[in-house]
Amino acid sequence: MAERKHFEVPKTFKGFAMKGIGNVGWIEKPIPECGPLDALVRPLALAPCTSDIHTVWAGAIGDRHDMVLGHEAVGQIIKVGELVKELKVGDKVIVPAITPDWGDSLSQAGHPMHSGGMLGGWKFSNFKDGVFGEVFHVNEADANLAKLPEGLTPRQCVMCSDMMTTGFHGAELADIKLGEQVCVIGIGPVGLMSVRGASLMGASRIIAVGSRPHCCDIAIQYGATDIVNYRNGDIVEQVLKMTDGKGVDKVIIAGGDNHTFAQAVKMMKPGGIIGNVNYLGEGENIDVPRVEWGVGMGHKFIHGGLTPGGRLRMEKMGNLIKYGRVDPTKLITHEFNGFEHVEDALMLMKDKPADLIKPVVLIEWNDDLE
Amino acid sequence: MAERKHFEVPKTFKGFAMKGIGNVGWIEKPIPECGPLDALVRPLALAPCTSDIHTVWAGAIGDRHDMVLGHEAVGQIIKVGELVKELKVGDKVIVPAITPDWGDSLSQAGHPMHSGGMLGGWKFSNFKDGVFGEVFHVNEADANLAKLPEGLTPRQCVMCSDMMTTGFHGAELADIKLGEQVCVIGIGPVGLMSVRGASLMGASRIIAVGSRPHCCDIAIQYGATDIVNYRNGDIVEQVLKMTDGKGVDKVIIAGGDNHTFAQAVKMMKPGGIIGNVNYLGEGENIDVPRVEWGVGMGHKFIHGGLTPGGRLRMEKMGNLIKYGRVDPTKLITHEFNGFEHVEDALMLMKDKPADLIKPVVLIEWNDDLE
Amino acid sequence: MAERKHFEVPKTFKGFAMKGIGNVGWIEKPIPECGPLDALVRPLALAPCTSDIHTVWAGAIGDRHDMVLGHEAVGQIIKVGELVKELKVGDKVIVPAITPDWGDSLSQAGHPMHSGGMLGGWKFSNFKDGVFGEVFHVNEADANLAKLPEGLTPRQCVMCSDMMTTGFHGAELADIKLGEQVCVIGIGPVGLMSVRGASLMGASRIIAVGSRPHCCDIAIQYGATDIVNYRNGDIVEQVLKMTDGKGVDKVIIAGGDNHTFAQAVKMMKPGGIIGNVNYLGEGENIDVPRVEWGVGMGHKFIHGGLTPGGRLRMEKMGNLIKYGRVDPTKLITHEFNGFEHVEDALMLMKDKPADLIKPVVLIEWNDDLE
Amino acid sequence: MAERKHFEVPKTFKGFAMKGIGNVGWIEKPIPECGPLDALVRPLALAPCTSDIHTVWAGAIGDRHDMVLGHEAVGQIIKVGELVKELKVGDKVIVPAITPDWGDSLSQAGHPMHSGGMLGGWKFSNFKDGVFGEVFHVNEADANLAKLPEGLTPRQCVMCSDMMTTGFHGAELADIKLGEQVCVIGIGPVGLMSVRGASLMGASRIIAVGSRPHCCDIAIQYGATDIVNYRNGDIVEQVLKMTDGKGVDKVIIAGGDNHTFAQAVKMMKPGGIIGNVNYLGEGENIDVPRVEWGVGMGHKFIHGGLTPGGRLRMEKMGNLIKYGRVDPTKLITHEFNGFEHVEDALMLMKDKPADLIKPVVLIEWNDDLE
Repeated sequence: MAERKHFEVPKTFKGFAMKGIGNVGWIEKPIPECGPLDALVRPLALAPCTSDIHTVWAGAIGDRHDMVLGHEAVGQIIKVGELVKELKVGDKVIVPAITPDWGDSLSQAGHPMHSGGMLGGWKFSNFKDGVFGEVFHVNEADANLAKLPEGLTPRQCVMCSDMMTTGFHGAELADIKLGEQVCVIGIGPVGLMSVRGASLMGASRIIAVGSRPHCCDIAIQYGATDIVNYRNGDIVEQVLKMTDGKGVDKVIIAGGDNHTFAQAVKMMKPGGIIGNVNYLGEGENIDVPRVEWGVGMGHKFIHGGLTPGGRLRMEKMGNLIKYGRVDPTKLITHEFNGFEHVEDALMLMKDKPADLIKPVVLIEWNDDLE
Repeated sequence: MAERKHFEVPKTFKGFAMKGIGNVGWIEKPIPECGPLDALVRPLALAPCTSDIHTVWAGAIGDRHDMVLGHEAVGQIIKVGELVKELKVGDKVIVPAITPDWGDSLSQAGHPMHSGGMLGGWKFSNFKDGVFGEVFHVNEADANLAKLPEGLTPRQCVMCSDMMTTGFHGAELADIKLGEQVCVIGIGPVGLMSVRGASLMGASRIIAVGSRPHCCDIAIQYGATDIVNYRNGDIVEQVLKMTDGKGVDKVIIAGGDNHTFAQAVKMMKPGGIIGNVNYLGEGENIDVPRVEWGVGMGHKFIHGGLTPGGRLRMEKMGNLIKYGRVDPTKLITHEFNGFEHVEDALMLMKDKPADLIKPVVLIEWNDDLE
Repeated sequence: MAERKHFEVPKTFKGFAMKGIGNVGWIEKPIPECGPLDALVRPLALAPCTSDIHTVWAGAIGDRHDMVLGHEAVGQIIKVGELVKELKVGDKVIVPAITPDWGDSLSQAGHPMHSGGMLGGWKFSNFKDGVFGEVFHVNEADANLAKLPEGLTPRQCVMCSDMMTTGFHGAELADIKLGEQVCVIGIGPVGLMSVRGASLMGASRIIAVGSRPHCCDIAIQYGATDIVNYRNGDIVEQVLKMTDGKGVDKVIIAGGDNHTFAQAVKMMKPGGIIGNVNYLGEGENIDVPRVEWGVGMGHKFIHGGLTPGGRLRMEKMGNLIKYGRVDPTKLITHEFNGFEHVEDALMLMKDKPADLIKPVVLIEWNDDLE
Repeated sequence: MAERKHFEVPKTFKGFAMKGIGNVGWIEKPIPECGPLDALVRPLALAPCTSDIHTVWAGAIGDRHDMVLGHEAVGQIIKVGELVKELKVGDKVIVPAITPDWGDSLSQAGHPMHSGGMLGGWKFSNFKDGVFGEVFHVNEADANLAKLPEGLTPRQCVMCSDMMTTGFHGAELADIKLGEQVCVIGIGPVGLMSVRGASLMGASRIIAVGSRPHCCDIAIQYGATDIVNYRNGDIVEQVLKMTDGKGVDKVIIAGGDNHTFAQAVKMMKPGGIIGNVNYLGEGENIDVPRVEWGVGMGHKFIHGGLTPGGRLRMEKMGNLIKYGRVDPTKLITHEFNGFEHVEDALMLMKDKPADLIKPVVLIEWNDDLE
């Protein structure tokens, strides 16, 4: 068992919270209990997510009261439970947005992100206080936290928590194979990572659907070979025209809405797979067009899923950065220094200026531990 | 190259055809040309399919004129092209409903049923004369026809062409694994074969959704452990109740309509797969319920596909009968003798009496070849 | 959290142990500590395994001192740790031979049987006291113990721990698909379960290689269609002859030795998979014949692996029995009543009389708990 | 059907051939017959392969008399059979080393490279005249030839035939997943392409085992992050040391000999997969070390296979070049102009100077067709 430094954990902590639908603010709470497998962590780098905005201002997951927001962080351990073996106070760690209960039946079935019930691995800022606190709690610390790879900074790794792993999962859900032609619909931060994911998994042509110039530029840097802008006409027609009427092999959905699935079905070959990582915030149904779906028999598979999380996943994300396969800092367009700026970063995400992809907040604690 | 018997192929043949939407009758046509890889075949056992009914009376695939119907047959070869190596005149063969072009790009990609375009492997009674003729043409004969296994009769094997392979494909699309709990929605002939397919692939509990007593009885014989009748209440609620609120691991859809997908999504665990083999005849969209689909992130995969066809597939179906894994003759509720009764069999399929599962027509030619 | 009955756990327990290589006997030990996630269990049904024999008399895993033997059990919980949520004192449970650490990296990678290092999920009678004690310890109880299915007895389920799951894993490793032709080499208890596994996964022809009449008889009952006896000649030649020189699609190895792999390679088609579940006790290398392995390029994949374990796996095994897909009691040829007979059962396994497949020991405790 | 240019096919052609084991030379032969599905092709770019050397000087596939050598080519069609639909005289095409019979049972089973029997898809310079002729024959032309992508030259694409597709298949056989750590043993031209394949499929760290400086340099350019040189000590020890004793996730074998498998097993984690694309030229057995292979139960899968071929595969290879994912011309160290230099290129391959990776021969025909 690793040697443990001492750190005096305070009794309470401040966090930036959802107070109710449409209502945010700073709150102070007692430090959460640290069970035998758990850890308490303080943030070194944070990023707000569009889903925080949905949660607060669209009430997408229902009402919440005084729930600290945020699920993207690199942090530093300030306390570990007595059964934690591989981590110790002072360790810097990548914190995944998804922190499964690894013994759960759905985890054993290969779906840890749904441990305890559908989407149950997503705890932070969903049904538990998130990472926008001076301190936050992590369940099953050994299994859920990855040490920050040597030589990498919190800033370089804070996109691992959600953007990278979620974007890449789109490519995994679509099961991209060597040489395939892929369309990525939506090139916000997740979609840009889906472009990179498709490229990393061996796609040949990657058609990115988007319109904001800065995002298009980054898409090209991440491996897109073509840009389709919906302002130039129906995206299905554009993609079919570019592929001699045949369509692409696979589609990744990382933006749009419930009707995007119909577009994806129409632009894809029989035998293709749609991989969705877009959080669908409203509407009753997703529409799948009967005829273009081959009257039920077109082998156009529709997949959608929450990103995997946990330690191993974060280690893999970290290694992809460390070994030069992806530079997620291209996503970072705005940067703040100091924990208190988490509020500014979140409001920036809400206001979405044209040049925004992703803001981050970097935090220094200036004490012995660091 | 095998020795070839002589058979005097006539100049024309009679067939029972779709003359236009809602209109059927006997026609006479010239014998089709037999290319170097092809074969001409005469039927020994035939079965009409619900899709023939859809094609004629619902106009499901659009209008057709003087197209011979039918795609389920066991037959006997009366002519082979000069490059056919493994079959000879007189051979008795299982004829798949799906006869791919094996060199096509989509075949090379692992989707032969879509060779030449979506559903393009389905040629008989779709865009080519079907098997309800005294003679029918088979493309790429070596690759598409399987010899009737020794010891088996045409009657035993005529369900291979479509019912068995399609029903089983539902289980394959749902990727049934050892010990999983499965719901099969719809227990007509295809659904009953999906029940058997789920059982053959190792399901533990199999909940069959249906109401006709004879079908329910056969479902039990094929491996269903529970029957759910929609007349006893909402099927989603019934299935959830039976599984302590957790739902089943997988769902096979072999009946119902566009709304059946919503039921399937609701009764299935995260991480599950829906395998659809139901031909969806009408309506614009299939509905996928947003919330129960995990707001796009529930890992509830939606698969649907046309059955594989071709020689190897039919050989496997034949072997499953030969080695006692399935007895498809349980599906046969009505039996006719003589080619001319193909009309009666089809009309029976149209009228659907309560005790009907599947009619077959058996044909003897009483000549030297047989 | 479930209500908990009281049970007075004693201070020490008796167990039948390996005292050193070639040396067994009864020992008494202090009751193991029960951590917050753990449980203490007493046996209701036990079975010795050939690997216990290898461990003691061949020293296959090296020397061990005063290690209680056994890893096949159905038991009853007598104590649970304070974080155990789904189990309570008095619950009857199926105990898997393999009890992974579910948070481990290799578990997260989908290989829980290797948690903590190769074969590390196999703890009982390997590097921890086994189940042949009046009391035994189970790590991560919620994640590793499955409740005995309602209506089933300990006798019916004790083959789940190892024989069923291991035998079935052979079929999984070979990735048996609908209609494939399979050879199972070795039809001791594991091989018989591989026969049943191949049948459950949809094999058509199943050729079982064995010689003992009782085993051959049970193999047929479990789904074998042909028996090959090595006394009648080279098994490769026999299998090739039966398959017109083409070979089988897949091979499961559940017996034999290091040279069995060469036989498997030679009797299998290109594109086939060998699934090994035989514990290879001696010799330096497994031999793969270069030429028949396609000079490295024959797509004859060689897989071998320890069975999965844990709760979900045991639940699936239990359900396969409950829903009538398999009756593992056919394996039970000898039966003892009373914990003390575990010694007799083990010695029987060592002596291997001709009519032995598997002995079990049934235990009644005759107290309030039961 | 495409319009067809006229080209006067000569009666005979010259080719560089194996005359017997250890004996090569120029021969003249009658032009082969062009069946209805076939094409005759003349070369535009050629490359000799180490396997040509094995075939002639090691007699690796047995004796051959007057068989034209070579299986790597880009060519131009000079004649097509009457059933060829998508190609016409004058078309420039990538010619795969592997030209399957697409209707064969093993093709239908997903293993076209073994159509007609193990390795049966490999026809050129194996059991049919190869591509080192002024004219060569291609079976099933529509299904086996890919049009040269617009904008690419024969020189850019001649590595598609074998080096790229074979090297990449190593990565496919090892089933490389996002973020995995991979070791590639052997960095000749195939191994270098395996490095690029592993990188394209998303590996993080790629450890390349090799010693020749130029190859090491190219390996780094193709994505290797570390080089291990056997001259610096045992490669297993080096790899284990670099990975903190844990080993890599996957191993690709693209060089070495029968004993290389033992090294691969020893340096790989449980749950890993070895993907072999090395043609094993001699020795009776491949050795798999019993203990490190987990006594048969370590889930260290051993895969090896001949590359896929055919049209779709070549189209994918072409697209990977066209869209900038790989530049295979880095492999080309020596270049000749004129068909007659195929002899020089082959002898260079035999002599293997230190700076050689791959020689190519470029051919201009200077006639109307070109």
